[in-house]
Amino acid sequence: MTVHTDYLWFNTKKPQEILRITDEVAGIVAASGVREGIVLVSAMHITAGVYVNDWESGLIADIQDWLEKLAPAGVDYRHHQTGEDNADAHLKRTILGHQVLLPITSGALDLGPWEQVFYAEFDGRRRKRVVVKVLGIP
Amino acid sequence: MTVHTDYLWFNTKKPQEILRITDEVAGIVAASGVREGIVLVSAMHITAGVYVNDWESGLIADIQDWLEKLAPAGVDYRHHQTGEDNADAHLKRTILGHQVLLPITSGALDLGPWEQVFYAEFDGRRRKRVVVKVLGIP
Amino acid sequence: MTVHTDYLWFNTKKPQEILRITDEVAGIVAASGVREGIVLVSAMHITAGVYVNDWESGLIADIQDWLEKLAPAGVDYRHHQTGEDNADAHLKRTILGHQVLLPITSGALDLGPWEQVFYAEFDGRRRKRVVVKVLGIP
Repeated sequence: MTVHTDYLWFNTKKPQEILRITDEVAGIVAASGVREGIVLVSAMHITAGVYVNDWESGLIADIQDWLEKLAPAGVDYRHHQTGEDNADAHLKRTILGHQVLLPITSGALDLGPWEQVFYAEFDGRRRKRVVVKVLGIP
Repeated sequence: MTVHTDYLWFNTKKPQEILRITDEVAGIVAASGVREGIVLVSAMHITAGVYVNDWESGLIADIQDWLEKLAPAGVDYRHHQTGEDNADAHLKRTILGHQVLLPITSGALDLGPWEQVFYAEFDGRRRKRVVVKVLGIP
Repeated sequence: MTVHTDYLWFNTKKPQEILRITDEVAGIVAASGVREGIVLVSAMHITAGVYVNDWESGLIADIQDWLEKLAPAGVDYRHHQTGEDNADAHLKRTILGHQVLLPITSGALDLGPWEQVFYAEFDGRRRKRVVVKVLGIP
């Protein structure tokens, strides 16, 4: 059994940004030598998410608008009594999810025709990490 | 270490449908020979979900009504400028989740008394797949 | 490959309660002897969740208030025709998620600076379990 670990670093220019990371994850899987197994892709910061959905700019904007409606900024959250102002970012990433597990079959990510992996930043402009952990057999 | 892969195919008659798949997943686990490990059950299409909850028709209808409230159809989503009309399906599956990981202990799914696995279709009437990936030891 | 299984039991005094379980999970990982791998932490009851977020009492209260808004109690859910009164608990745990997968690197949980694991009870005052499944290599 092979276990291979790597990290992706992000430092977005905007407070909120959604970035496709499918190719970066596929590169780490290739480097691991695993041909049958799984790969965990998990945000290590609690105001960011990782999710699988469509690579279509309209839908990405829809997702951002929709999260703003379900978990709005500018509300008087209790969390802000600590001096923080990002409670909404914690809630947005809760809806979206912060990790996905992708199957690896015959040496490649075993994804459906439209599946793409995204990093979703909700409190950016600082260095943040995603852990990528590959498990399987060569 | 054993890694075993299989797929479940769906082609629902209705646009939205929720189907119990616990037995199908258990059958794939039995075929894998894995007695200690995990099984990933993950929708390969981005307008479908996979989740664990109660096998009770009232609750299943509640879940569908509730998702319609949180992620309504009939809204002027940006995604629809591409010619698609299913943005709400992408959002509904986001709340519900698109994958679960089930533990395998002593050769069987290690589920709580009421845990059942479901496939949730939000844009049906076409062929769609769920990947089932078993990892563990015999 | 090592596969190690343990369970955490809960019996909360209040119907709703959020409990930090990072140390309990870390203890099970240490007992497993796994130094490179993953650990699945999954609620076995369908009115409870497991999630990763901030260990800050204000945010924990914000999460509870927010879930109450998105999935309110006191609504005439169809599920209640069975005699149950906890449909909202099933929905709350759906938003929050019922399982997380944590990476294990160099013998320890490989978590970001603020990541903590929580058990979220939405229908408490009864004995409930979380399964903890460790997979990896020593």
